[in-house]
Amino acid sequence: MDQISLTERDAIGIGMHDLRTVDCDPDFWYPVAWSHELKAGKTIGTRYAGQPVALVRPTEGEVFALEDRCAHRQVPLSKGTVKGQAVQCCYHGWAYGRSGRCIDVPYLGKGKLPNGVRTYPCREQGGLIFIFPGDPALADSIPMPTLAHVGDPDFRTRQFGPRVACHYTFMHENLMDMNHQFLHRRQMGQIRARFLSQDRGENFVEARYSFARTDTHQPLAEALIFGRHRDLKGREQPVEEVVTVRTEYPYQTLRIVDKDGDLMMDLWVAYVPQSADQRTTRAFGLLSVRRPKIPFLIDLIWPALAVFTNRIFEEDREVVELEQQAWDAQGGDRNREVFPVVNHLRALLARSGRPGQSAGAGRAVFS
Amino acid sequence: MDQISLTERDAIGIGMHDLRTVDCDPDFWYPVAWSHELKAGKTIGTRYAGQPVALVRPTEGEVFALEDRCAHRQVPLSKGTVKGQAVQCCYHGWAYGRSGRCIDVPYLGKGKLPNGVRTYPCREQGGLIFIFPGDPALADSIPMPTLAHVGDPDFRTRQFGPRVACHYTFMHENLMDMNHQFLHRRQMGQIRARFLSQDRGENFVEARYSFARTDTHQPLAEALIFGRHRDLKGREQPVEEVVTVRTEYPYQTLRIVDKDGDLMMDLWVAYVPQSADQRTTRAFGLLSVRRPKIPFLIDLIWPALAVFTNRIFEEDREVVELEQQAWDAQGGDRNREVFPVVNHLRALLARSGRPGQSAGAGRAVFS
Amino acid sequence: MDQISLTERDAIGIGMHDLRTVDCDPDFWYPVAWSHELKAGKTIGTRYAGQPVALVRPTEGEVFALEDRCAHRQVPLSKGTVKGQAVQCCYHGWAYGRSGRCIDVPYLGKGKLPNGVRTYPCREQGGLIFIFPGDPALADSIPMPTLAHVGDPDFRTRQFGPRVACHYTFMHENLMDMNHQFLHRRQMGQIRARFLSQDRGENFVEARYSFARTDTHQPLAEALIFGRHRDLKGREQPVEEVVTVRTEYPYQTLRIVDKDGDLMMDLWVAYVPQSADQRTTRAFGLLSVRRPKIPFLIDLIWPALAVFTNRIFEEDREVVELEQQAWDAQGGDRNREVFPVVNHLRALLARSGRPGQSAGAGRAVFS
Repeated sequence: MDQISLTERDAIGIGMHDLRTVDCDPDFWYPVAWSHELKAGKTIGTRYAGQPVALVRPTEGEVFALEDRCAHRQVPLSKGTVKGQAVQCCYHGWAYGRSGRCIDVPYLGKGKLPNGVRTYPCREQGGLIFIFPGDPALADSIPMPTLAHVGDPDFRTRQFGPRVACHYTFMHENLMDMNHQFLHRRQMGQIRARFLSQDRGENFVEARYSFARTDTHQPLAEALIFGRHRDLKGREQPVEEVVTVRTEYPYQTLRIVDKDGDLMMDLWVAYVPQSADQRTTRAFGLLSVRRPKIPFLIDLIWPALAVFTNRIFEEDREVVELEQQAWDAQGGDRNREVFPVVNHLRALLARSGRPGQSAGAGRAVFS
Repeated sequence: MDQISLTERDAIGIGMHDLRTVDCDPDFWYPVAWSHELKAGKTIGTRYAGQPVALVRPTEGEVFALEDRCAHRQVPLSKGTVKGQAVQCCYHGWAYGRSGRCIDVPYLGKGKLPNGVRTYPCREQGGLIFIFPGDPALADSIPMPTLAHVGDPDFRTRQFGPRVACHYTFMHENLMDMNHQFLHRRQMGQIRARFLSQDRGENFVEARYSFARTDTHQPLAEALIFGRHRDLKGREQPVEEVVTVRTEYPYQTLRIVDKDGDLMMDLWVAYVPQSADQRTTRAFGLLSVRRPKIPFLIDLIWPALAVFTNRIFEEDREVVELEQQAWDAQGGDRNREVFPVVNHLRALLARSGRPGQSAGAGRAVFS
Repeated sequence: MDQISLTERDAIGIGMHDLRTVDCDPDFWYPVAWSHELKAGKTIGTRYAGQPVALVRPTEGEVFALEDRCAHRQVPLSKGTVKGQAVQCCYHGWAYGRSGRCIDVPYLGKGKLPNGVRTYPCREQGGLIFIFPGDPALADSIPMPTLAHVGDPDFRTRQFGPRVACHYTFMHENLMDMNHQFLHRRQMGQIRARFLSQDRGENFVEARYSFARTDTHQPLAEALIFGRHRDLKGREQPVEEVVTVRTEYPYQTLRIVDKDGDLMMDLWVAYVPQSADQRTTRAFGLLSVRRPKIPFLIDLIWPALAVFTNRIFEEDREVVELEQQAWDAQGGDRNREVFPVVNHLRALLARSGRPGQSAGAGRAVFS
């Protein structure tokens, strides 16, 4: 990593808005709920960047998504009931169909029905319900993401979806900079990430790392999945996996390939802004792990893997929330980034997003 | 209801302030506490629209009401102690009489006593303590409200006084629009309100409804009070009571008259703003129910009636708080009201109230 | 007290900023932690007036104090680990030495190290860790305060350090005005403070009181320390101790001398602003009590003394927080002070402090 010029960063982002005031580009497919959260014949409320969204699953037919406010008195439609292909507001019983049109006001003549509510293009895939919060005309032309190895019998996939009180950009930077393994020293033992190379393009930034273990302690869950590393008595022993972290806007992936070139782990994650200022985020993650040769071993270690990944994620969550708290207290971004990959990532996130309501309120990036 | 022109609403309220920024007219008598909350020889703190009020009940003589801030260091007098016809601040012992005048500073000569604190005209009636928060000179000319059938031996009266996190106007509209029976379908069964007629004047709006039951389920508490309805096997069976809802500014009543023209139930309620922005409310309600012919039956069903009315009120509370939350999130009133009675009510509340501090901050009514 | 002219107050403070918008002068030594809170080889986070401070105690050498934000991503250094004479950030392992200089970024060449973080002059004395939050060049010229009788074998000293949600000036005024004994009537019995005399100078205000008991009840803890007072059946019985309260900016002391002129109790307290608006405070108090002649008696009564002083302090805390709440609600200071000592104290606090960020936002003092 030392070999990468620090002056690269100076070429990036000068004059940009404070990155923490840049909103996500809404013209992508964003997950807003897990499929299992929405039972047949029910509706639930979710949100994208301050916009309340009602998801409706009729007993027959696909899920659909409406603005989660009755046109009458703005009460959430997700508090209502599903009736055929419509949702009926809990308060005075106004009903809205799949198109968002108001199709019934129980105490009003049919000719006099008021207008309806906004709809969102909606798709269900890989156990997730996605909406397209941007321009609906673009929805069909924007591809759905590849969701790790969901459905692949060679892998088992774990869902995780924590809520985190920070801007989504802190999450991208957290994962991209593997030098933060220091944070996880208690869970992972002394691992040192060695930066190998980077790549970038119009809509992505990618970094590759090898991992070197600097102690002899290896967690059980890791050993069971990747095999035990034979350590040379205190010498740094390279773990021969290569870890590739990639932000392909707006999603992020982390893939681990073993010494034989086989994909061992594939993580896909989307960071979905919750509040209007986008400073709270709900992550939707899919972690696909290759099933070991021994049948049922994956089932045996699955709970341990859950505990292990949860602990790691809790550490990440604490630190990115501390970053957001510092931003709030300082009134802007004072980060002094020295790792070129992260600076390229910041530039990607800045140019791919949209100036938020609070843009201009914060300070310059790279102060 | 269909027969009432929707165009009526266009004639109402254009150019008005956002209704949720209209403050209550303080030149009325408002309840601020239940009598039983204030023991003899004690003082309690309450409030009207952000103004803290100390109520004082000497061991002898009437309750009186003072601004709840010591003139010295602004500490609540209601934290102090009652001493004869005065209240003594808890901090340095300054004492104030019924007139608000400072009558003692324990460490200061009598000739040097500072000025006192503001008082409020105060009356106690029907188990409630009222103050007149507006111009004291008007207090005697403004009549006290009629408090349902408190004290009438033919009725038994229940007190209820929840706090609700919304503007008082949402409460008026909630009760006035009986089409919201849909909200209470789990408690009341399938009841359909049929709008009969309306009436309005300078200071009131009134709507009359009949109720039609659309299923065969009738709650026990209702049946015991009003008698069981004989249903014609699935056909809509009119419940022959007439329900009259009336806002006579600033109070609201709901009266139920049975098929013989006898008053069965009489509800009186006042909505008292708590915070300075008037977006939190404490309701003071008196629900008078006619005693059935069979003695003690009313006592037998009283607990069930309490549960029943509490459940209904909880549903109302949730929905009006959702309305306030939507107003907060949307930064103004986007309601699209189609029921003329409610639009007349809104006009009444708007013209009877006073522009609040935040008037102009919200958006136009009926956007 | 009556004999002191009320007109004195008119000469004070006209045209001043609202006292609750005056910040503490940072050019003094302020305690920010108890020594026992910071173990060897550990770091903790504390704060002064919104500035986060990391205190670091290496296993060898003195405590040092840094700005509690890593220069990299602003994460608190106090979440990190101590390594020799340095602290290492928990996130990416950046390390900072005693001087605040960044001495290691594990993944970066030594020649490319970024700048470090701000430091604070730091001293440890009497069980407290002090920093100098102002101009570091002045630190050596500003003396440390005398800390009650810490270390004196004739006294036993109790530490107390509550957090209080009010501006530090309310705390000074609370203690200075002994007429507030009325507040503690339940703990202390009916004690009447008699104002004896005052003194003041450039940087201090002092008031002396004698205490007269107006009932026969004397708390046990008080009696054990000061001896039982022989009461003349209902007549006011002077307690012959003299109590001297002194604010010597920015600290405050309360000393009790008995009838023989011996110092019986010596309280030292510093009020340290926590939030940037200085409307929350952490007090650091040292209460030195002279050991009675009978050995071990002090140990016997120590728990009772703790309970007694805690109860009194809880009453003070409640009332000063009520004062702050009134200030917040009223948008400024409406106090009407009649006690000249307090007005002199206010003038001292106003001229010794610095206009805060919110100066001008509040209303005039002595409205």
